[in-house]
Parts: sequence; structure tokens; C-alpha cells
Amino acid sequence: MRVLVTGAAGMIGRKLTARLAVDGHLGGKALTALILHDIVAPPRPDVAIPVIDLASDFADLATAEELIGHRPDVVFHLAGVVSGTAEANFDLGYAVNLDGTRRLFDAIRLSGLHPRVVYASTAAVFGGPFPDVVPDDFAPTPLSSYGSQKLIGEVILSDYTRRGFMDGVGLRLPTICVRPGKPNGAASSFFSGIIREPLNGQPAALPVHRDWVHTHASPRAAVGFFIHAGSMDTSPVGSRRNLVMPGTSVSVGEQIASLTRIAGPRVAALIHEAQDPAVWAIVKTWPQRFAATRARDLGFVAETSFDEIIEAYITEELGGRLPEFA
Amino acid sequence: MRVLVTGAAGMIGRKLTARLAVDGHLGGKALTALILHDIVAPPRPDVAIPVIDLASDFADLATAEELIGHRPDVVFHLAGVVSGTAEANFDLGYAVNLDGTRRLFDAIRLSGLHPRVVYASTAAVFGGPFPDVVPDDFAPTPLSSYGSQKLIGEVILSDYTRRGFMDGVGLRLPTICVRPGKPNGAASSFFSGIIREPLNGQPAALPVHRDWVHTHASPRAAVGFFIHAGSMDTSPVGSRRNLVMPGTSVSVGEQIASLTRIAGPRVAALIHEAQDPAVWAIVKTWPQRFAATRARDLGFVAETSFDEIIEAYITEELGGRLPEFA
Repeated sequence: MRVLVTGAAGMIGRKLTARLAVDGHLGGKALTALILHDIVAPPRPDVAIPVIDLASDFADLATAEELIGHRPDVVFHLAGVVSGTAEANFDLGYAVNLDGTRRLFDAIRLSGLHPRVVYASTAAVFGGPFPDVVPDDFAPTPLSSYGSQKLIGEVILSDYTRRGFMDGVGLRLPTICVRPGKPNGAASSFFSGIIREPLNGQPAALPVHRDWVHTHASPRAAVGFFIHAGSMDTSPVGSRRNLVMPGTSVSVGEQIASLTRIAGPRVAALIHEAQDPAVWAIVKTWPQRFAATRARDLGFVAETSFDEIIEAYITEELGGRLPEFA
Repeated sequence: MRVLVTGAAGMIGRKLTARLAVDGHLGGKALTALILHDIVAPPRPDVAIPVIDLASDFADLATAEELIGHRPDVVFHLAGVVSGTAEANFDLGYAVNLDGTRRLFDAIRLSGLHPRVVYASTAAVFGGPFPDVVPDDFAPTPLSSYGSQKLIGEVILSDYTRRGFMDGVGLRLPTICVRPGKPNGAASSFFSGIIREPLNGQPAALPVHRDWVHTHASPRAAVGFFIHAGSMDTSPVGSRRNLVMPGTSVSVGEQIASLTRIAGPRVAALIHEAQDPAVWAIVKTWPQRFAATRARDLGFVAETSFDEIIEAYITEELGGRLPEFA
């Protein structure tokens, strides 16, 4: 089984590649090659099978053809520019997220390979107003260029699957939490920050109300979604190929209660409230809960509590240890 | 007011152009130029204002830029290849319906003109299974390349409107009935054929069950949708710019009862049942009724009975006269 990962140097891309390398198989079929692509050289996993690592601009005309020339059986398409960048840089967002994706799918179409294609989409395909729980068949009306571009990729994936060019599955991912690394400029950054910074002994600002509910999945759960989508039997999926992924819906207050339970009050005390009307103005337009019924029925599994999400972070990023001062 | 019509030689394009020529204004603002485009030269209306008529391939790279170079205030974008063609010819469908539309919208974006853009979309953005009445917020999951391409155009129109490049409105049109002219290869052709052929003294085959319900709007109503969308106040539309148009939902039996009422039993007797499993296999996957609540609330008006639809055909295509033998 030859596996291609685009966006392989990104946070999920690295974790997905590492998981594939450890497993040595996908859905019971032995890996025979890993083809890794990103705009910078992706980290090379320590495996005995051939690893082809390529660094180029995903928006380049030649990239898709080169990648598919390596004849993958499964394609994990994670490459893309993030929402803030796609909003700030109109041309870049459309060039990478729309044109790059379409070229990849067209290279697949013209190859005749008919691979499984797992596409990183997003809950940002949805735009409000929202019901309390967003059902699987809620009409996507994105309110960002990123969400629009991802939605267009979904439509092409679905049509190309229907026409028999690929066996595509789109994953509408919830917010990934706890993200390792540094805070970024995203309005959602604090959802990870209020857990990650205190666990690293740093203060963290809470810019919104404690009763605001949001849906999260850990990086580990997200990797699990990709692995499952890459290996599942797709015959029960039917014609609706883009699936809302499950997650754990909790209030910010419940996030903090989990942190207190797991790491103690001294860690949780590093969070200080600092209402930020600009952040709140964005966050309050987001959906809060998703039914994700079809994905659960198809075997996608997320955490069942925010405690598990924090524990996943401590295991994967802190070597299983709480900070000294906790 | 400078008005561009793409697809101006098509059935709706010709009727829309004729209506604009007769009215001499759009929403009370005098027309100052008509810019008409199609792959063949569109008919020139008899008007005192300048008419620019252009014939070129809508898929050509230069077409969009040339059209927008004529600085339209309102763009009616009707150009496209029809569903059967888009399904049979993959490259042509994506080149015209997706790339052509995107180039037109990009030429608008780069022009800085911020025109009203009225986009001919389709109820074929929806794919089953369907509820009895398809609500406005039913998630579009097209089951044809045509529906996929039209949906992608909708998403771009919506994002470009949100970003302030245009003031776009997409119209999801129901089946247009009674289409003048000859039968075509579309599975929906018989909905018009069973009315048009008998009114022209010709026999017509009925390939499906009489109790099958379908939603129709006359060509006249469709022109009305475009005129209204081109001149309405769009501030109440909000961020969801693609609207399900209203129509008249009737069974095939009710269509025939209308024909009998209006043209008499001798005309209706020209219809003969000839069940066609291939046609039925397609038709039975189609939605039957649409709520179209938002469009109605925004002032879009369709016929309220199938009698009106037949009368529109007799007025527009038969000079108001029933056939001699009726």
C-alpha cells in the first residue's frame, strides 16, 4: 500500500505520518511506500520502507502531477492555507485551497488509479444562524473564503467519486484541541491556549464567557479520523461523501474544570479572564454542537470527555508528566 | 443602466433580452446599453440604445474580460452547458460551467465595478433522498456534474459577494415548462412535451406514472425571477445568496387535466401512455416540491396553477390561439 500525505509537515500531517510509520500498515494492508509532501521538507519517519519526501509549492502547476506520478493507493490531502491566511490573502487562498486541490483531484482522475482520497475539510463550511445542534444535513453556507474553498473541494471530491475517478471521503473537522506549539492569530487559538499554556507554566488569557460551548477533538482523535477514513469500507457511505466528524462539546468553564481536575488548582489559576470583544465577535458566530450521527455510525470515534483531550495532550506532548509546580 | 446577458441566444436569454427591450428599464432605471453574449450571435432586439452583441466560446480565456470591459451595472449570467452535455462531456462541462463562471466572476472582481450579478443556478444542486417538501436550507448534494458545477458557482458568488466584489444573487430554477421548440434528450423533456406537442397537433408520449408530482415555472415566470433579482433591494437577502425559486407543484395527471380544461379532450387525447423505465429511473430520483419560502418572501412570483403555465405558452408561443382542431 503506497500512501501519499500532502501537508505532511503540518501538525496533523506529522502526527498522521508518525502513526502510519508506527503501525506499518493501513487497515491491515502493509505499507510499501510513504510519499510525503509539503512546502518545506516534511520530517522523515524512521521506517524500513521507501520514503519519498518532496518540498514544493502546492499551488505549483507541476506539483499534483508529480505527486500522483508516485502512484499512491491512498491519498491523505491535508495541504492548504489556514483560514486567517485565506481571508487575508485572497489569491493565495484560492490558488492553494481551490486550484491546488482541483489539480490534485484532476491528476488522480487522469491517472486512472482510483485511489482512496481522504480530504481535510472543516466545520467552517457551515455559516450561521445555527440550530442548537447542527445536524449532518445542515446546508453549508460558509462565511469565510477558507470555508468556501474547502466546500468547493468537497463538491469536486463528491462528483469525482460519483463518476468513478476516486473513492473520496471528506472530513469536516471540528476545532483541534489541544494544539501543541505556540498561540497563533486565529480567534480559536485560546481554546488550546487556556489548557496548553498553564500546563507549561505560562499564563493564559480567556477572552470569552465561561459558558460558551464549543466542539473539540484532540490531534490524536483527528489522526484516528484520517486512519479510519483511509481504511474503512466506503460502500455504506453512499453518495454523501463529506462527513461531519464527531467531537466533544463542552463549555469553556468545563474545559477549565477538566484542567483543574487533572492538573490541580495551581495550574488552572494561570488562566485569567480578559474579555476581548474582537475575539468574541468572531467566536459567537460559530456553531456550538454537531450531531455527527453519520460519522459515528460509520465508526469515527472522538473523545467522550474533555478530560481525555487533556490527557491526550499530556501523553503526546509532555511525555505523560504534569509540570513540577502542579 | 448597462446590462450584460450571457447565454443571450438561449431560450431564457432571448426572452429576458426581449423583456428588457420592451420595458426599456430595469427596476425603474433606464437601460443605456445591452451587452449580449453567446456562442452564436444572439438576436438583436429592436431598441434605440446601443446593443453590443458578441459571439465567442464562453470557455475562452478572453471572453470574460471582454464582456466585463463593457462595464455592465447588472450581469445576468445564463451561459452554460446543459446537464446532459455536462454529464456526457466531462471536460466541456467543467470548462464552461465552472471555469467560465469563475473567470466571469474574477473579471468582475478585478474590474472594481461591483455590479449586481444574477446567476442561473438550478434545483439540480440538490440530491436525494428528499423530504416531501424540500426546505430552503436543505443541504445541496448534487448527483450530476452539472449540479456540482452550478453549486460551485453558487459558492464563489456567495464568497465574492461577502467580500464586496459583487452583489450576487443565485437563482435555483425549477423545471421550466412549457419549453417551446422541439423535444430534447433530457429526461425532463416530456413534462413540456405532453403539453406542447398536443397543442401543436402532434402526439406525445407519457413515460411516467400520472401521479408523479413535479415543480414547474413557465419561461415567463423565469424571466420574471431574473428581472426581480436584477432590480430588487438585496439588503434583506443576508449572507445566504442562493435562493430556491418558487414554482407550481402538480402531478402529471393534473398537468393533463389542465390541458383538457384549456384545450379540450381532443387535444389531451394526443397524449398516450408509454412507460419508459429508463426515464422513470431518473425522474423518480428528483425532488417533487420546494418550500421556496425565502424567495416568496423576497418577492419572487411563480404561477399559482398549471392552467396559468399553459396559458403563458399559448400567449407567448401560439399567438394566443388554440389549434384549429381543438
